[in-house]
Amino acid sequence: MAFISYSDLKSFTIQVFIAIGCTTEDAELASDVLLSADLRGIDSHGVARLTGYLRLWESKRINTKPKIEVVHQTPSTAVVDGDKGLGLVVGPQSMQIAIEKAQQVGTGWVSVRNSNHFGIAGYYAMMALDKDMVGIAMTNASPLVAPTFSKERLLGTNPIAVAIPAGKEPSFVADFATTTAAHGKLEILQRNELPAPNGWIQDTEGNVSTDAHELIKGGALLPLGSDREHGSHKGYCLGAIVDIFSAVFSGANYGPWVPPFVSFLAPSTDPVGEGLGHFFGAMRIDAFREKEEFKKHMDQWIQRFRNSSTVEGQQKVYIPGDPEREFEELRRKQGIPLHQKVLDELQIIGKKMDIDFPEPLRSSMNTN
Amino acid sequence: MAFISYSDLKSFTIQVFIAIGCTTEDAELASDVLLSADLRGIDSHGVARLTGYLRLWESKRINTKPKIEVVHQTPSTAVVDGDKGLGLVVGPQSMQIAIEKAQQVGTGWVSVRNSNHFGIAGYYAMMALDKDMVGIAMTNASPLVAPTFSKERLLGTNPIAVAIPAGKEPSFVADFATTTAAHGKLEILQRNELPAPNGWIQDTEGNVSTDAHELIKGGALLPLGSDREHGSHKGYCLGAIVDIFSAVFSGANYGPWVPPFVSFLAPSTDPVGEGLGHFFGAMRIDAFREKEEFKKHMDQWIQRFRNSSTVEGQQKVYIPGDPEREFEELRRKQGIPLHQKVLDELQIIGKKMDIDFPEPLRSSMNTN
Repeated sequence: MAFISYSDLKSFTIQVFIAIGCTTEDAELASDVLLSADLRGIDSHGVARLTGYLRLWESKRINTKPKIEVVHQTPSTAVVDGDKGLGLVVGPQSMQIAIEKAQQVGTGWVSVRNSNHFGIAGYYAMMALDKDMVGIAMTNASPLVAPTFSKERLLGTNPIAVAIPAGKEPSFVADFATTTAAHGKLEILQRNELPAPNGWIQDTEGNVSTDAHELIKGGALLPLGSDREHGSHKGYCLGAIVDIFSAVFSGANYGPWVPPFVSFLAPSTDPVGEGLGHFFGAMRIDAFREKEEFKKHMDQWIQRFRNSSTVEGQQKVYIPGDPEREFEELRRKQGIPLHQKVLDELQIIGKKMDIDFPEPLRSSMNTN
Repeated sequence: MAFISYSDLKSFTIQVFIAIGCTTEDAELASDVLLSADLRGIDSHGVARLTGYLRLWESKRINTKPKIEVVHQTPSTAVVDGDKGLGLVVGPQSMQIAIEKAQQVGTGWVSVRNSNHFGIAGYYAMMALDKDMVGIAMTNASPLVAPTFSKERLLGTNPIAVAIPAGKEPSFVADFATTTAAHGKLEILQRNELPAPNGWIQDTEGNVSTDAHELIKGGALLPLGSDREHGSHKGYCLGAIVDIFSAVFSGANYGPWVPPFVSFLAPSTDPVGEGLGHFFGAMRIDAFREKEEFKKHMDQWIQRFRNSSTVEGQQKVYIPGDPEREFEELRRKQGIPLHQKVLDELQIIGKKMDIDFPEPLRSSMNTN
């Protein structure tokens, strides 16, 4: 485990994106999105995925000079074609369109096709906050999830993020995969050779499994709820809704046809759309209620929940966004911790591209 | 268990609503919404709740001659004040406003205050279908759910419904509580004196409980995911989002302040808003994509999922809405099955109000 300063790591990723053909502006934007995951403690979706983006670029699945355009619109909606651009660049531009629509008519909703992996959904939802809007973001993803009763992997971990401004309190920011556990949680168990809890995954036959390496063998992640008795059909519904809003609205690939980001799956040979899809929403607070009134009540909501009495052994009831904000405060000071395997990969990229990899601030033996 | 024909049962509930002061039009609308739950197999939310509505009316918490009005709006949004009307009447009128906004600018979003229990969320989402729109409906509800790590009950079962039109295939209709199990599921266990599965409820101290009567003693339902390791923080996020969209947007009560529908809880003495809240959305398909193109791909989505191979012991992978549609086909023919306790309650109402309760079509010993 090594700690790299946020700004050094960002300079490095900017240079990498420029080296593969991005404009400086796009490279900065993509790095900002990518590293927001590392800052917020979602290590699986940050700089650890840089090799993944390079793998897609090498196999010509990413266009680093995309012509991103609105192909259809109404006053409150738009469909964006990402022209195979980095999701990290297509995403922010599309969310920006949703925000502009909301400025005009109260809300804006944008469905996106022909994109690829866009980092953390929370980044996009949070773009709405300083505009005094509620932000919503979702995306479909590599088919690794089996719907309730299915042996086949038909959905991605299809995350949903919702960011809601408050007044004196920090914003409410929910950002979660619609599976019991995100794929990144499994990757952490894999790196540390640990088993997975019951209820996260099933094997190729649909039996419960605790093998964190099950997906490579054809097993599947389970929808939020884990099994029918505990509501996995609801997690399946959520993943399905994200898939349909992101891809059937836009003309992207859906379900098992979604072009995978993971290295152990190949893209479908009979696609039903273009690239993968996202869905963004922005709702102006004052399209519903006087701004300060809304914020006062959000503060009261947050305070009531945060101060509720806890079950034994727990310190507090978290407000969505609390853990990530705590990570961000710490990591802006102490740097981004990189697992040795991630560090090795990034140093190899640096050598290959002739870009200096930054010196660690310090190292630790903690391998988590 | 007795079976009453749908039309007979509907005539009865219409007369009951008229007897408490509703106009004929409102009584018909309210009955249509209420009995849609019985038709669709969601017995807990149908005519079994008629006594609950009457209890609210007797305690002057329902205004049967409400002046429902839009108090704030933009081209794509509105806030509706339900004037303490039956949720079953306020709901359809508010969803209708969302649909009209969508006709104008592509999408419509309506947050509602000063309402009460509105039946099944699915009814409202489905109102969008024959307009070639996606429909969304949610509501907050009696505080019976403990957020992750909380001992206190701060949220309702806060359901979300999403209805999406298809072409040749039946529509996709998801309608689910954001808890592991809906309150109605517990009520069914209570009526049959059965224990609840692990992961549905906790006792007043936050310990796992299997006692289906736990809520009356102060225990709580658990958010979808059941515990932290299985993603209950995600179910908590979902319930919170429903609460905020329904009530902080509109000026209704939120969290533990929501006026309860269940008989064992009293309304808060220091409300933070008016009544309870709902949130409705409508999105025109052709605000995103050519209608027939969208429907063709929805059909393909549905067929691919429905025909995927199942785990051993299961017949098929369900599309959201399949089970409810099967119930509806059966019950329109065979009548609505009423548990003996529900039948007794309804017959008492009939006697008290001098309204003939319909003759059962037939009876059965099945007590489920």
